[in-house]
Amino acid sequence: MIAAGIVAGGSGSRMGGELPKQFLELNGKPVVVYTAEKFLSCSAIDIVIIGINPVWKDHMERLAEEYFPENDRLLIVSGGSDRNETILNIISAAEEKFAPRDEDIILTHDAVRPFVTEKMIADSINVVKNCEICTAAIPATDTIISTENGETANGFPDRGKMRLVQTPQTFKINTFKKVYAALDEPERAAATDVCRLYHSKGYQVRIIDGDVSNIKLTYPQDYELAKLIVNR
Amino acid sequence: MIAAGIVAGGSGSRMGGELPKQFLELNGKPVVVYTAEKFLSCSAIDIVIIGINPVWKDHMERLAEEYFPENDRLLIVSGGSDRNETILNIISAAEEKFAPRDEDIILTHDAVRPFVTEKMIADSINVVKNCEICTAAIPATDTIISTENGETANGFPDRGKMRLVQTPQTFKINTFKKVYAALDEPERAAATDVCRLYHSKGYQVRIIDGDVSNIKLTYPQDYELAKLIVNR
Repeated sequence: MIAAGIVAGGSGSRMGGELPKQFLELNGKPVVVYTAEKFLSCSAIDIVIIGINPVWKDHMERLAEEYFPENDRLLIVSGGSDRNETILNIISAAEEKFAPRDEDIILTHDAVRPFVTEKMIADSINVVKNCEICTAAIPATDTIISTENGETANGFPDRGKMRLVQTPQTFKINTFKKVYAALDEPERAAATDVCRLYHSKGYQVRIIDGDVSNIKLTYPQDYELAKLIVNR
Repeated sequence: MIAAGIVAGGSGSRMGGELPKQFLELNGKPVVVYTAEKFLSCSAIDIVIIGINPVWKDHMERLAEEYFPENDRLLIVSGGSDRNETILNIISAAEEKFAPRDEDIILTHDAVRPFVTEKMIADSINVVKNCEICTAAIPATDTIISTENGETANGFPDRGKMRLVQTPQTFKINTFKKVYAALDEPERAAATDVCRLYHSKGYQVRIIDGDVSNIKLTYPQDYELAKLIVNR
């Protein structure tokens, strides 16, 4: 089974408004609908599951009825207390519909990245067949530095080696469940970044090509840019 | 003396068009004109010098005549073979107008970052009074990874410590000349990043707050975003 897990837990505070960013509209259609469409249009994907903040679940279900009536490849589930818990809820829902098998994979994706491409989805599926985890990423265009105290730069990594992580992040379901189950509570709280978690457990994290247009709607100007991209 | 050095050497190949990015227009006015205005409007700055690819020097001079007629605080000079050489040309021009003094500083800035703010300029000038170099930078919103081979991620730095470097990058002129003069040819070729260079020579690199709107026009979508920002 190949599942797409669309993570839509954000409260949208950085965007300023009250409506979570995944519900902002582009040409009258909510962002999360664009995102869901991209995965639904990939026939290799058996099920698309949106993990949503419980407060917004009814709203999301109404959108699903409106845009994807009677589509039995789309499910809405309540998100958990953090991203990984949301992904586990999504996996549970997928495994209720499809008997679990070792080769099952999940593509996890930010609801607020509506410009994921067919190619990224196909690349993710292909690459993770031969490894445990892969993530979309793009080369860094800015020079990157690191700072311990926020005032003075300490680290000057080679820009050519730096990548900005996007989603999809794709992994075998079985391994994810096993890795996560073995963590204690503090480790779980610290495991916000699944690539980093896998790396710390000795797994190779493969990179697939993201795209500069695969933006994450974070700041108001990202929304302005998204309106432009969608009208291109 | 406080000089602003606007570096406009780009050929603009990533933007696709033939016109270098600094000449693209926002509401009918070239990007580099916006950038120059920001520094000219700061009264603490004695001289604003644009270092431009020699091929485009005539064009830049015509723009200067059009937008800043008889402004004796603005100079246009030919850029050098790389960014540091261009900055040296700018410094030479500044020191022809103002007798060099130990406390002279230069704010170096990308011509294609027209949304630099008064505050960034003021902060840069204030901070560099008590150190040798400072750079504008913003917190990273994306997770950052590093890769040696482009296919597998090896480094998973703590996102909270990572900063994306912008300009202005501001430093004392004397020290820059001294540091650069002491480099051999291979070191000069490698010294594309002045912050990294200073760090390698044992200087502290201070950070001042940049802004997400202080974008660098790199890709076509940056130009689209710039049009939006300018009309806000």
